[in-house]
Amino acid sequence: MDIQEFVAQSIGQWRSQRSAHHLAFSHFEAVQSVIDIEAISPEDASVIELCKAYGVEPQQIVSPFKMTWEGESDWDDGEEVLKGSSVLVPVPNSTQLNCGKLLREQGYAETMAAAGDYRLMEDGTFVLTTSYDRAAAEEKIWFVNPNVRCRVSLIKTSAGTGVVTASFSSEIRQS
Amino acid sequence: MDIQEFVAQSIGQWRSQRSAHHLAFSHFEAVQSVIDIEAISPEDASVIELCKAYGVEPQQIVSPFKMTWEGESDWDDGEEVLKGSSVLVPVPNSTQLNCGKLLREQGYAETMAAAGDYRLMEDGTFVLTTSYDRAAAEEKIWFVNPNVRCRVSLIKTSAGTGVVTASFSSEIRQS
Repeated sequence: MDIQEFVAQSIGQWRSQRSAHHLAFSHFEAVQSVIDIEAISPEDASVIELCKAYGVEPQQIVSPFKMTWEGESDWDDGEEVLKGSSVLVPVPNSTQLNCGKLLREQGYAETMAAAGDYRLMEDGTFVLTTSYDRAAAEEKIWFVNPNVRCRVSLIKTSAGTGVVTASFSSEIRQS
Repeated sequence: MDIQEFVAQSIGQWRSQRSAHHLAFSHFEAVQSVIDIEAISPEDASVIELCKAYGVEPQQIVSPFKMTWEGESDWDDGEEVLKGSSVLVPVPNSTQLNCGKLLREQGYAETMAAAGDYRLMEDGTFVLTTSYDRAAAEEKIWFVNPNVRCRVSLIKTSAGTGVVTASFSSEIRQS
Protein backbone atom coordinates (compact mmCIF):
# COMPACT_ATOMS: atom_id res chain seq x y z
CA MET A 1 0.00 0.00 0.00
CA ASP A 2 1.33 3.45 -0.87
CA ILE A 3 0.01 6.82 0.25
CA GLN A 4 -2.03 7.29 -2.93
CA GLU A 5 -3.87 4.01 -2.31
CA PHE A 6 -4.33 4.87 1.35
CA VAL A 7 -5.91 8.23 0.52
CA ALA A 8 -8.03 6.68 -2.27
CA GLN A 9 -9.40 4.10 0.21
CA SER A 10 -10.21 6.88 2.66
CA ILE A 11 -12.32 8.99 0.28
CA GLY A 12 -15.99 8.94 1.27
CA GLN A 13 -18.30 9.66 4.16
CA TRP A 14 -17.66 7.91 7.48
CA ARG A 15 -19.74 7.57 10.62
CA SER A 16 -17.29 7.72 13.50
CA GLN A 17 -17.50 6.60 17.12
CA ARG A 18 -14.61 8.01 19.13
CA SER A 19 -13.66 7.31 22.72
CA ALA A 20 -11.08 9.49 24.38
CA HIS A 21 -9.37 8.27 27.53
CA HIS A 22 -8.06 11.13 29.63
CA LEU A 23 -5.54 9.03 31.46
CA ALA A 24 -4.61 11.18 34.43
CA PHE A 25 -8.14 11.15 35.80
CA SER A 26 -9.54 7.99 34.14
CA HIS A 27 -12.19 9.96 32.30
CA PHE A 28 -14.04 8.53 29.29
CA GLU A 29 -15.27 10.91 26.62
CA ALA A 30 -17.59 9.70 23.84
CA VAL A 31 -17.82 11.51 20.50
CA GLN A 32 -20.09 10.66 17.59
CA SER A 33 -19.42 12.34 14.31
CA VAL A 34 -19.66 12.26 10.56
CA ILE A 35 -16.41 12.68 8.66
CA ASP A 36 -16.22 13.53 4.98
CA ILE A 37 -12.98 12.92 3.13
CA GLU A 38 -12.78 14.24 -0.42
CA ALA A 39 -10.02 14.48 -2.98
CA ILE A 40 -9.09 18.02 -3.98
CA SER A 41 -7.10 19.39 -6.88
CA PRO A 42 -3.35 19.91 -6.46
CA GLU A 43 -4.05 23.33 -7.95
CA ASP A 44 -6.53 24.27 -5.22
CA ALA A 45 -5.56 27.60 -3.62
CA SER A 46 -5.41 26.06 -0.13
CA VAL A 47 -2.98 23.38 -1.37
CA ILE A 48 -0.73 25.93 -3.10
CA GLU A 49 -0.72 28.01 0.08
CA LEU A 50 0.24 25.07 2.31
CA CYS A 51 3.06 24.14 -0.09
CA LYS A 52 4.36 27.72 0.04
CA ALA A 53 4.14 27.84 3.84
CA TYR A 54 6.32 24.73 4.11
CA GLY A 55 8.65 25.42 1.18
CA VAL A 56 7.43 22.37 -0.76
CA GLU A 57 7.40 22.29 -4.58
CA PRO A 58 3.91 21.49 -5.98
CA GLN A 59 5.34 18.60 -8.05
CA GLN A 60 6.48 16.83 -4.84
CA ILE A 61 2.94 16.38 -3.50
CA VAL A 62 0.44 13.56 -4.12
CA SER A 63 -3.28 13.05 -3.42
CA PRO A 64 -4.22 16.21 -1.53
CA PHE A 65 -7.53 15.83 0.31
CA LYS A 66 -9.93 17.66 2.56
CA MET A 67 -11.46 16.35 5.78
CA THR A 68 -14.63 17.83 7.19
CA TRP A 69 -16.10 16.68 10.50
CA GLU A 70 -19.13 17.44 12.55
CA GLY A 71 -19.87 15.69 15.80
CA GLU A 72 -21.06 15.76 19.36
CA SER A 73 -19.16 15.03 22.53
CA ASP A 74 -20.66 13.99 25.86
CA TRP A 75 -17.86 15.86 27.67
CA ASP A 76 -19.26 17.60 30.78
CA ASP A 77 -22.73 16.61 29.54
CA GLY A 78 -22.55 19.79 27.52
CA GLU A 79 -23.24 18.05 24.21
CA GLU A 80 -20.57 20.25 22.70
CA VAL A 81 -20.72 20.45 18.92
CA LEU A 82 -17.38 19.78 17.26
CA LYS A 83 -17.08 20.98 13.73
CA GLY A 84 -14.24 21.77 11.40
CA SER A 85 -12.37 21.04 8.26
CA SER A 86 -8.76 20.74 7.20
CA VAL A 87 -6.80 20.38 3.99
CA LEU A 88 -4.11 17.68 4.10
CA VAL A 89 -1.24 17.33 1.65
CA PRO A 90 1.04 14.24 1.54
CA VAL A 91 4.62 14.83 0.44
CA PRO A 92 6.30 11.44 -0.08
CA ASN A 93 9.99 11.13 0.64
CA SER A 94 11.81 11.04 -2.70
CA THR A 95 13.98 8.07 -1.75
CA GLN A 96 11.86 6.11 0.75
CA LEU A 97 8.41 5.94 -0.77
CA ASN A 98 6.57 4.55 2.28
CA CYS A 99 7.49 7.65 4.35
CA GLY A 100 6.97 11.35 4.01
CA LYS A 101 5.51 14.55 5.40
CA LEU A 102 1.83 15.31 5.82
CA LEU A 103 1.07 19.02 5.69
CA ARG A 104 -2.09 20.11 7.48
CA GLU A 105 -3.94 23.36 7.49
CA GLN A 106 -5.11 22.63 10.99
CA GLY A 107 -4.50 19.83 13.48
CA TYR A 108 -7.05 17.93 15.53
CA ALA A 109 -5.41 18.90 18.77
CA GLU A 110 -4.40 22.44 17.98
CA THR A 111 -5.88 25.07 15.73
CA MET A 112 -2.68 25.90 13.87
CA ALA A 113 -1.01 24.49 10.79
CA ALA A 114 1.29 21.53 11.38
CA ALA A 115 3.48 19.18 9.38
CA GLY A 116 3.70 15.58 10.55
CA ASP A 117 5.89 12.65 9.56
CA TYR A 118 4.03 9.63 8.20
CA ARG A 119 5.03 6.07 7.53
CA LEU A 120 3.08 3.19 6.01
CA MET A 121 3.80 -0.10 7.73
CA GLU A 122 4.10 -3.51 6.07
CA ASP A 123 0.48 -4.33 7.02
CA GLY A 124 -0.90 -1.07 5.58
CA THR A 125 -1.14 0.81 8.89
CA PHE A 126 -0.60 4.54 8.44
CA VAL A 127 1.44 6.04 11.30
CA LEU A 128 1.63 9.81 11.72
CA THR A 129 3.80 11.65 14.25
CA THR A 130 3.35 15.37 14.76
CA SER A 131 5.29 17.60 17.14
CA TYR A 132 3.62 20.66 18.53
CA ASP A 133 5.01 23.32 20.86
CA ARG A 134 4.11 21.60 24.09
CA ALA A 135 2.90 18.21 22.90
CA ALA A 136 3.41 15.44 20.39
CA ALA A 137 0.67 13.46 18.67
CA GLU A 138 0.95 9.93 17.34
CA GLU A 139 -1.82 8.58 15.19
CA LYS A 140 -2.30 5.11 13.69
CA ILE A 141 -4.98 4.47 11.09
CA TRP A 142 -5.72 1.13 9.46
CA PHE A 143 -8.44 -0.48 7.39
CA VAL A 144 -10.08 -3.59 8.81
CA ASN A 145 -11.88 -3.94 5.49
CA PRO A 146 -12.69 -1.40 2.77
CA ASN A 147 -15.63 -0.11 4.82
CA VAL A 148 -14.21 -0.05 8.35
CA ARG A 149 -11.24 1.99 9.57
CA CYS A 150 -9.72 2.18 13.03
CA ARG A 151 -7.76 5.12 14.31
CA VAL A 152 -5.77 5.42 17.54
CA SER A 153 -4.46 8.85 18.56
CA LEU A 154 -2.11 9.52 21.42
CA ILE A 155 -1.33 12.95 22.75
CA LYS A 156 1.93 13.01 24.68
CA THR A 157 3.68 15.73 26.61
CA SER A 158 6.49 17.26 24.60
CA ALA A 159 9.01 15.47 26.79
CA GLY A 160 7.60 12.47 24.98
CA THR A 161 7.22 9.98 27.78
CA GLY A 162 3.88 10.85 29.34
CA VAL A 163 0.68 9.97 27.50
CA VAL A 164 -2.05 12.47 28.32
CA THR A 165 -4.91 11.31 26.13
CA ALA A 166 -5.41 8.08 24.20
CA SER A 167 -8.33 8.01 21.84
CA PHE A 168 -9.83 5.43 19.55
CA SER A 169 -12.17 5.88 16.61
CA SER A 170 -14.04 3.21 14.73
CA GLU A 171 -15.23 4.53 11.41
CA ILE A 172 -17.89 2.91 9.22
CA ARG A 173 -18.25 3.92 5.60
CA GLN A 174 -21.58 5.56 4.77
CA SER A 175 -20.80 6.29 1.11
CA MET B 1 11.16 -7.70 19.76
CA ASP B 2 10.44 -11.40 20.20
CA ILE B 3 7.60 -12.99 22.12
CA GLN B 4 9.73 -13.50 25.25
CA GLU B 5 10.52 -9.77 25.38
CA PHE B 6 6.90 -8.90 24.72
CA VAL B 7 5.69 -11.08 27.59
CA ALA B 8 8.48 -9.79 29.88
CA GLN B 9 7.41 -6.18 29.17
CA SER B 10 3.81 -7.10 29.95
CA ILE B 11 4.44 -8.58 33.41
CA GLY B 12 3.00 -6.38 36.13
CA GLN B 13 -0.19 -4.75 37.28
CA TRP B 14 -2.06 -2.50 34.87
CA ARG B 15 -4.90 -0.05 35.33
CA SER B 16 -7.02 -0.35 32.22
CA GLN B 17 -9.60 1.95 30.63
CA ARG B 18 -11.52 0.14 27.93
CA SER B 19 -14.09 1.53 25.51
CA ALA B 20 -16.16 -0.87 23.46
CA HIS B 21 -17.95 0.39 20.38
CA HIS B 22 -20.95 -1.76 19.49
CA LEU B 23 -21.05 -0.69 15.90
CA ALA B 24 -24.49 -1.77 14.77
CA PHE B 25 -26.21 0.50 17.25
CA SER B 26 -23.47 3.09 17.93
CA HIS B 27 -23.31 2.17 21.60
CA PHE B 28 -20.35 3.13 23.79
CA GLU B 29 -19.46 0.88 26.72
CA ALA B 30 -16.87 1.97 29.29
CA VAL B 31 -14.98 -0.53 31.41
CA GLN B 32 -12.44 0.20 34.13
CA SER B 33 -10.36 -2.65 35.39
CA VAL B 34 -7.16 -3.81 36.98
CA ILE B 35 -5.21 -6.44 35.07
CA ASP B 36 -2.45 -8.54 36.62
CA ILE B 37 -0.03 -10.34 34.32
CA GLU B 38 2.36 -12.76 35.96
CA ALA B 39 4.90 -15.24 34.66
CA ILE B 40 4.15 -18.86 35.53
CA SER B 41 6.27 -21.97 35.41
CA PRO B 42 6.31 -24.10 32.25
CA GLU B 43 5.74 -26.99 34.65
CA ASP B 44 2.55 -25.53 36.08
CA ALA B 45 -0.30 -28.06 35.85
CA SER B 46 -2.49 -25.66 33.85
CA VAL B 47 0.30 -25.19 31.28
CA ILE B 48 0.88 -28.92 30.92
CA GLU B 49 -2.85 -29.45 30.49
CA LEU B 50 -3.14 -26.78 27.75
CA CYS B 51 -0.17 -28.31 25.91
CA LYS B 52 -1.83 -31.73 26.05
CA ALA B 53 -5.17 -30.35 24.86
CA TYR B 54 -3.49 -28.87 21.76
CA GLY B 55 -0.93 -31.64 21.14
CA VAL B 56 2.01 -29.32 21.80
CA GLU B 57 5.31 -30.61 23.24
CA PRO B 58 6.31 -28.76 26.44
CA GLN B 59 9.75 -27.92 24.95
CA GLN B 60 8.07 -25.94 22.14
CA ILE B 61 6.57 -23.35 24.50
CA VAL B 62 8.07 -20.11 25.86
CA SER B 63 7.11 -17.61 28.57
CA PRO B 64 3.77 -18.97 29.80
CA PHE B 65 1.85 -16.36 31.79
CA LYS B 66 -1.37 -15.78 33.66
CA MET B 67 -3.74 -12.83 33.26
CA THR B 68 -6.21 -11.92 35.97
CA TRP B 69 -8.70 -9.10 35.56
CA GLU B 70 -11.34 -7.44 37.66
CA GLY B 71 -13.36 -4.54 36.42
CA GLU B 72 -16.63 -2.71 36.14
CA SER B 73 -18.67 -1.92 33.07
CA ASP B 74 -21.22 0.86 32.72
CA TRP B 75 -23.23 -1.36 30.34
CA ASP B 76 -26.97 -0.86 30.99
CA ASP B 77 -25.97 1.15 34.05
CA GLY B 78 -25.82 -2.20 35.81
CA GLU B 79 -22.26 -1.69 37.01
CA GLU B 80 -21.62 -5.30 36.10
CA VAL B 81 -18.51 -6.75 37.71
CA LEU B 82 -16.20 -8.47 35.23
CA LYS B 83 -13.75 -10.85 36.75
CA GLY B 84 -11.68 -13.72 35.49
CA SER B 85 -8.31 -15.20 34.81
CA SER B 86 -6.67 -17.13 32.03
CA VAL B 87 -3.42 -18.98 31.43
CA LEU B 88 -1.73 -18.13 28.12
CA VAL B 89 0.99 -20.16 26.47
CA PRO B 90 3.01 -18.91 23.45
CA VAL B 91 4.24 -21.54 21.02
CA PRO B 92 6.64 -19.87 18.55
CA ASN B 93 6.81 -21.18 15.03
CA SER B 94 10.00 -23.22 14.73
CA THR B 95 11.05 -21.63 11.43
CA GLN B 96 9.53 -18.12 11.58
CA LEU B 97 10.30 -16.82 15.03
CA ASN B 98 8.11 -13.70 14.94
CA CYS B 99 4.96 -15.86 14.50
CA GLY B 100 3.32 -18.66 16.41
CA LYS B 101 0.31 -19.96 18.28
CA LEU B 102 -1.03 -18.59 21.54
CA LEU B 103 -2.89 -21.19 23.58
CA ARG B 104 -5.49 -19.84 25.99
CA GLU B 105 -7.41 -21.49 28.74
CA GLN B 106 -10.23 -19.07 28.18
CA GLY B 107 -10.83 -16.25 25.73
CA TYR B 108 -12.02 -12.75 26.48
CA ALA B 109 -14.97 -13.14 24.20
CA GLU B 110 -15.90 -16.72 24.91
CA THR B 111 -15.55 -18.89 27.97
CA MET B 112 -13.88 -21.81 26.22
CA ALA B 113 -10.26 -22.64 25.40
CA ALA B 114 -8.94 -21.23 22.16
CA ALA B 115 -5.71 -21.17 20.19
CA GLY B 116 -4.91 -18.03 18.26
CA ASP B 117 -2.24 -17.13 15.73
CA TYR B 118 0.10 -14.32 16.72
CA ARG B 119 2.60 -12.24 14.85
CA LEU B 120 5.01 -9.57 16.03
CA MET B 121 5.29 -6.70 13.57
CA GLU B 122 8.44 -4.75 12.71
CA ASP B 123 7.43 -1.96 15.13
CA GLY B 124 6.83 -4.37 18.04
CA THR B 125 3.03 -4.54 17.68
CA PHE B 126 1.65 -7.93 18.74
CA VAL B 127 -1.20 -9.07 16.47
CA LEU B 128 -3.40 -12.01 17.51
CA THR B 129 -6.10 -13.61 15.37
CA THR B 130 -8.46 -16.15 16.90
CA SER B 131 -11.26 -18.02 15.16
CA TYR B 132 -14.25 -19.10 17.18
CA ASP B 133 -17.33 -21.04 16.08
CA ARG B 134 -19.36 -18.07 14.98
CA ALA B 135 -16.88 -15.21 15.25
CA ALA B 136 -13.28 -14.19 14.76
CA ALA B 137 -11.29 -11.89 17.02
CA GLU B 138 -8.36 -9.72 16.02
CA GLU B 139 -6.30 -8.07 18.70
CA LYS B 140 -3.40 -5.63 18.43
CA ILE B 141 -1.30 -4.73 21.44
CA TRP B 142 1.60 -2.32 21.48
CA PHE B 143 3.72 -0.46 24.00
CA VAL B 144 3.78 3.33 23.74
CA ASN B 145 6.48 3.30 26.38
CA PRO B 146 7.40 0.72 29.03
CA ASN B 147 4.53 1.89 31.23
CA VAL B 148 1.72 2.41 28.71
CA ARG B 149 0.18 -0.24 26.46
CA CYS B 150 -2.62 0.12 23.93
CA ARG B 151 -4.84 -2.71 22.85
CA VAL B 152 -7.42 -2.76 20.04
CA SER B 153 -9.77 -5.75 19.79
CA LEU B 154 -12.14 -6.40 16.93
CA ILE B 155 -14.87 -9.02 17.01
CA LYS B 156 -15.96 -9.99 13.52
CA THR B 157 -18.65 -12.32 12.28
CA SER B 158 -17.21 -15.64 11.18
CA ALA B 159 -17.78 -14.66 7.56
CA GLY B 160 -15.00 -12.25 8.42
CA THR B 161 -16.22 -9.10 6.76
CA GLY B 162 -18.55 -7.57 9.33
CA VAL B 163 -17.08 -5.96 12.43
CA VAL B 164 -19.47 -6.28 15.35
CA THR B 165 -17.51 -4.72 18.20
CA ALA B 166 -14.36 -2.63 18.18
CA SER B 167 -12.79 -2.00 21.54
CA PHE B 168 -9.82 -0.03 22.75
CA SER B 169 -7.92 -0.29 26.01
CA SER B 170 -5.32 2.06 27.35
CA GLU B 171 -3.32 0.40 30.09
CA ILE B 172 -1.11 2.20 32.58
CA ARG B 173 1.41 0.29 34.63
CA GLN B 174 0.77 0.33 38.38
CA SER B 175 3.66 -1.95 39.33
